[in-house]
Amino acid sequence: MNWPASVTIKEVGPRDGLQNEQVFVSTADKIAWINQLSGTGVTSIEITSFVNPKWIPALADAAEVAKGIERMPGITYSALVPNRQGLERALAVDMDEVAVFMSVSESHNQRNINKSSSAAFPILREVVQEALSAGKSVRGYVSTVFGCPYEGPVSIDEVIRVSETLFDMGIGELSLGDTIGIANPQQVQRVLDILLKRFDANKLALHFHDTRGTALANIVVSMDMGITTFDASVGGLGGCPYALGASGNVASDDLLYMLEAMGIQTGVDQEKLLAAAIFIQEKIGRDLPSRNLQVSRSNG
Amino acid sequence: MNWPASVTIKEVGPRDGLQNEQVFVSTADKIAWINQLSGTGVTSIEITSFVNPKWIPALADAAEVAKGIERMPGITYSALVPNRQGLERALAVDMDEVAVFMSVSESHNQRNINKSSSAAFPILREVVQEALSAGKSVRGYVSTVFGCPYEGPVSIDEVIRVSETLFDMGIGELSLGDTIGIANPQQVQRVLDILLKRFDANKLALHFHDTRGTALANIVVSMDMGITTFDASVGGLGGCPYALGASGNVASDDLLYMLEAMGIQTGVDQEKLLAAAIFIQEKIGRDLPSRNLQVSRSNG
Repeated sequence: MNWPASVTIKEVGPRDGLQNEQVFVSTADKIAWINQLSGTGVTSIEITSFVNPKWIPALADAAEVAKGIERMPGITYSALVPNRQGLERALAVDMDEVAVFMSVSESHNQRNINKSSSAAFPILREVVQEALSAGKSVRGYVSTVFGCPYEGPVSIDEVIRVSETLFDMGIGELSLGDTIGIANPQQVQRVLDILLKRFDANKLALHFHDTRGTALANIVVSMDMGITTFDASVGGLGGCPYALGASGNVASDDLLYMLEAMGIQTGVDQEKLLAAAIFIQEKIGRDLPSRNLQVSRSNG
Repeated sequence: MNWPASVTIKEVGPRDGLQNEQVFVSTADKIAWINQLSGTGVTSIEITSFVNPKWIPALADAAEVAKGIERMPGITYSALVPNRQGLERALAVDMDEVAVFMSVSESHNQRNINKSSSAAFPILREVVQEALSAGKSVRGYVSTVFGCPYEGPVSIDEVIRVSETLFDMGIGELSLGDTIGIANPQQVQRVLDILLKRFDANKLALHFHDTRGTALANIVVSMDMGITTFDASVGGLGGCPYALGASGNVASDDLLYMLEAMGIQTGVDQEKLLAAAIFIQEKIGRDLPSRNLQVSRSNG
């Protein structure tokens, strides 16, 4: 197997993690936590989502968070935007990067954004163009790449179609999402084998959830295929065990532990990242699923 | 990457799992649980350990368990034995297989069996010969292959020396133990690359603990290297989060989920295995670390 010399971990806990938690973390705590994450060595943090607060009350303070945090040089501060209103709000607080999203599955799009992909694409195209004109970098998420909670298996042709559409709009990086944590290593190999014939490995990120414990195994296979960028949330945030079907991102601290042990450079400090995981675990008020947090609890 | 067509899961929960739990599971519950495991399709169950009950009170009822369970055709019922007394007890209850163990690390041997390897090897040799004479198969465990809690890194030469000594005694299969759950995929590849030049892949099993969440990733790499036998415990038993340094085996149910999803045959029924995990979780009285159990709790 082939291991890369270095890997980029993109911290998405403040957005993808918190949006799936039932506890509202106070704005001050979010700011303190993101500042702590900024000191870990990560170079990209998705700090919030400029969606309608009605949809995701946990992130209703998006603008306050964006204005409140310290911006450290060398770090890209990113936010999710679903539409032009979201983009306006993101630009108003000077985000470095915005992320747009689209699901491969029409059922998922309908339930997630209440639109078909054909209705949503023109909106996204405008958002991407306006963001690029404003000098921002744009990231694209493709959701349900490895399976949909409503439709089950998804078509690889549809993954290609959505990915090409997003790249055609001008996004700089595409994050392939295993939204429900259903991917397995054989499937990751098969899907990447097809996608890497069309897209540059350096423009793809993988975004695994760890519902079934396979996230690190999927990352190992992804690295073997040439992928070097992975989204993750400290502590494995986002997987409230009492919410039906919810599942956390792969834990940044578990990913970092594995990469460090493998001699793969990340620039991220293990102790500081674990401290950030412990901080947010206390605010959420339940044991987060990260194995390294579990070890830390055993030894503490 | 190369995936095998089929994999053998060896269930070690009743021994390696329970010996690291602080709760004493009643003899009747152990018997009911092992009978349940016998119905899942697994072909090998390590049901107990014939050590001095003073050392491992959780398994003090070894003989009663061995006598109480139903023996299903096609299943190898195995037990750990540390010495001749243990072997006599195992033979008295007609185990199909006995397992002997030796650590690569002298510090670990001293703390685990209060003997050096040079003092322990002659004893093991007698045990293995007597077991073989009695028509039993013998399995060998090498502990701390990927690192020792007392000494840190271990020498691959020492792994080879211990492995060769055990094979020379006549053991049929060697299980390479990541006793403290510290192995990473790069290391697994490196260690197996060396060992497979000397030993037949069909005579090696890998025994991972999931302390840091890397067990399934390590298994994926092991499969790519040609290994097709893995030890596991339902639920990820054995990792009491309140005991310093303790860590569970990789969860059989998580391993099975991944293998099934990858199209790799195991002969084991997912639903029945999960039921066995739920059964023992209730007896232990805490949430076990298996991700599939967590999903089951969320949906329940």
